[in-house]
Amino acid sequence: MSSTDWVNALRRISGVVVDVSPDALQAAQADKSGHISDSQPLAVVFATEIDGVRDVMRFAHTHHIPVVTRGGGSGLAGGAIGQSGEIVLSLERMNHILEISVEDRLARVQAGVINSDLLAAAGEHGLWFAPDPASRQWSTVGGNIATNAGGLLCAKYGVTRESVLELTVVLADGRLIRTGHRSVKGVTGFDLTGLFIGSEGLLGVIVEATVKLLPISAHPVSTLSARFDDIGHATRACQAITGGGHTPAIMELIDSISLRHIHEYLDLGPPEEGEVLLIAQADASDATEQIALFASLCEQAGGVVKTSGPGPEAEALLHLRRSMHPAMEKLGQVLIEDVSVPRSQLGAMFQEIRAIEIQHGVEIPTVAHAADGNLHPNFIVQGDVVPEHIWDAADDLFRRAIALGGTLTGEHGVGLLKRRWLVDELGDDQWQLQRDIKSLFDPQGLLNPGKVFTH
Amino acid sequence: MSSTDWVNALRRISGVVVDVSPDALQAAQADKSGHISDSQPLAVVFATEIDGVRDVMRFAHTHHIPVVTRGGGSGLAGGAIGQSGEIVLSLERMNHILEISVEDRLARVQAGVINSDLLAAAGEHGLWFAPDPASRQWSTVGGNIATNAGGLLCAKYGVTRESVLELTVVLADGRLIRTGHRSVKGVTGFDLTGLFIGSEGLLGVIVEATVKLLPISAHPVSTLSARFDDIGHATRACQAITGGGHTPAIMELIDSISLRHIHEYLDLGPPEEGEVLLIAQADASDATEQIALFASLCEQAGGVVKTSGPGPEAEALLHLRRSMHPAMEKLGQVLIEDVSVPRSQLGAMFQEIRAIEIQHGVEIPTVAHAADGNLHPNFIVQGDVVPEHIWDAADDLFRRAIALGGTLTGEHGVGLLKRRWLVDELGDDQWQLQRDIKSLFDPQGLLNPGKVFTH
Repeated sequence: MSSTDWVNALRRISGVVVDVSPDALQAAQADKSGHISDSQPLAVVFATEIDGVRDVMRFAHTHHIPVVTRGGGSGLAGGAIGQSGEIVLSLERMNHILEISVEDRLARVQAGVINSDLLAAAGEHGLWFAPDPASRQWSTVGGNIATNAGGLLCAKYGVTRESVLELTVVLADGRLIRTGHRSVKGVTGFDLTGLFIGSEGLLGVIVEATVKLLPISAHPVSTLSARFDDIGHATRACQAITGGGHTPAIMELIDSISLRHIHEYLDLGPPEEGEVLLIAQADASDATEQIALFASLCEQAGGVVKTSGPGPEAEALLHLRRSMHPAMEKLGQVLIEDVSVPRSQLGAMFQEIRAIEIQHGVEIPTVAHAADGNLHPNFIVQGDVVPEHIWDAADDLFRRAIALGGTLTGEHGVGLLKRRWLVDELGDDQWQLQRDIKSLFDPQGLLNPGKVFTH
Repeated sequence: MSSTDWVNALRRISGVVVDVSPDALQAAQADKSGHISDSQPLAVVFATEIDGVRDVMRFAHTHHIPVVTRGGGSGLAGGAIGQSGEIVLSLERMNHILEISVEDRLARVQAGVINSDLLAAAGEHGLWFAPDPASRQWSTVGGNIATNAGGLLCAKYGVTRESVLELTVVLADGRLIRTGHRSVKGVTGFDLTGLFIGSEGLLGVIVEATVKLLPISAHPVSTLSARFDDIGHATRACQAITGGGHTPAIMELIDSISLRHIHEYLDLGPPEEGEVLLIAQADASDATEQIALFASLCEQAGGVVKTSGPGPEAEALLHLRRSMHPAMEKLGQVLIEDVSVPRSQLGAMFQEIRAIEIQHGVEIPTVAHAADGNLHPNFIVQGDVVPEHIWDAADDLFRRAIALGGTLTGEHGVGLLKRRWLVDELGDDQWQLQRDIKSLFDPQGLLNPGKVFTH
């Protein structure tokens, strides 16, 4: 059958809308990683009903056509981009919030609900949805789950995994299963919910989810900024805070190169030479005392500290942090890395990054979710092709993070861009076991082929 | 080969101690569920080193001998009991705490470390280990992980899953893998750590774990007791608390039948006719305000409330709650059930239990981790055999919990005793998928055969 025949056959499936316009096909070749596939997919299929998803999977299964599941397209690892011969199955139009329960502190949503839409809807009931990836305004809850997305508030509220109770999943052959429980506790059988979370579209198509909501805190948030003249002093302050047993709601560290670029982007005038910025927030009933304590720990480490309650000053600090990515994008094509190390190794990882900069002659502006030990080193590339010396520097970065007891991806996922390092972290035996799990769920290898695993 | 030949061969493996004494074999036939297997296992093999575990698994793999992994033997579902032809592999003697890191707020432990030993060791560093099953004094961390154990403090601090970072696991054929990360974040590949947690010895032998520790709170705990004359009033108070967005550290509900038996056991004199007891604790910086708020919600629901700070009064209340199990054991053989329902269905589930009591002519004293919707209905049996009408009542219990959106086991696991209901909860397709995962990890079916799955 020709491509046209396949597309015509797809159009006969109800519960989906098939789009083969050049714009749709082109959009499905890219995500926010900067990576673009080298060919256009067969079609973008927008599901509107679970039965549509099931029929698409049955069709794909019968005809051996690969399927790339896609949410908001905000991935940073090339995990949801399509290429020649593939169906890109978009869940974006399955965007209904099915239920918000105050009594059970949960929401049932279709996979395509935008994170911030759920946040807003929950807010009307005095509740909120904790996962807060930077893409919150345009990423989907299903995509957050498929990548086990993180964000600033993970420092206190955990990653997406901590917020998921139940999943409804269409398997590779079109069968439908529901995993987990609406109850907060449950240990019946293996934890397939956990297995699907972060599985990057390789094991099934998540179509619905029951997620936990949290009560909105009645306490005003307290905020701190601390400016240091050296990254080592700043990471010592971070370690004094987390190692002292404290759990900020947010703790973000911006290195001097990043700070300079952000200041330029925001037209703020240059920061001090070598200046590093730490931002921390506390949101519990003792937020003010907590921030005062963090302030004194920062001062002991040589920081110049300002604190504030809710208001424009705090908002400006978070705006500054959130301007990191747009500031980077103004400089060229951005490759955002995502290593994570044990909290105690935050300073050591920054040292490694500085050493890699010198060794490879490349600038690596870096921000960190400092309470978690999760760093985002950025590589800026001119043009569409990532030069080999940048990959070499990234290679060093990953190996050193793993050597420090960490991982090559803290919250973005493996996708296409980190496949080649996967076996280094997992080891041969675990890598093989993971491959076997993939084959068990997807014997034909139709779900997101070529992602996560290299072969 | 004869049993003696097998035992002699096992004795030649270094890093293990083989025990075939009648006491050891008999102990390995039972756990704390009351269920006893109908035959003695081949041998109890106490591992002292990872290499010993690997060699035992290689030996078992070569000779097709089933292996039942066992920790403290405190299970409540018959999940770690051995029978004829099986090796019971005990991890009890692998009980070294390998590391406690204050900076990284974690501990690395061998699987056989007793939960309360870890708690004590962490305490010396101002840290604590959150999972607090009632068996804390004699259950192992490895066993807690293998069953995803719960406890009183799950209400605020989550189940064991929330406390596990890394696992070292010996696979069915003796290969060794390490899953997870020492870092608090990480999304490289599928979440095999989560898959092993709660897998009840079916997928591999957990030999070491890296677990999270929490800072000990500097704030004094506040405690509340509320006495109600009706379970419906008490559950309405619970729902007012959790549905109001509050998260007690502990919230335990003791129904009137249980309270009467506990009073008898503790020689306290009889409670009021029909009296129901709710115990709640708060441990954050605003503990006093929280408890005052809970008190007013309890009073609005008709409760008679007392509050207290740390001291003998609070301890007496928790002692009363912890006396539930010994009080039941004085009455006969105890079958503790473990259904969990969405928080909003706590009252409905108590109503179902009362209806089942009437229908089957059986008393079902019940306590609940009320902030989680996790109930422990108890059946008291005279003699060793559970009569059919008790199984019928249990059957009703499970089906009604599932119908309310819950699960047949919140924290104890499936083991032997809940196998027959597993497929009702999972559905055929998910049940088959879980069976297939089991076969993938253990193609010969040697790891804890007959547990969790009926065939």
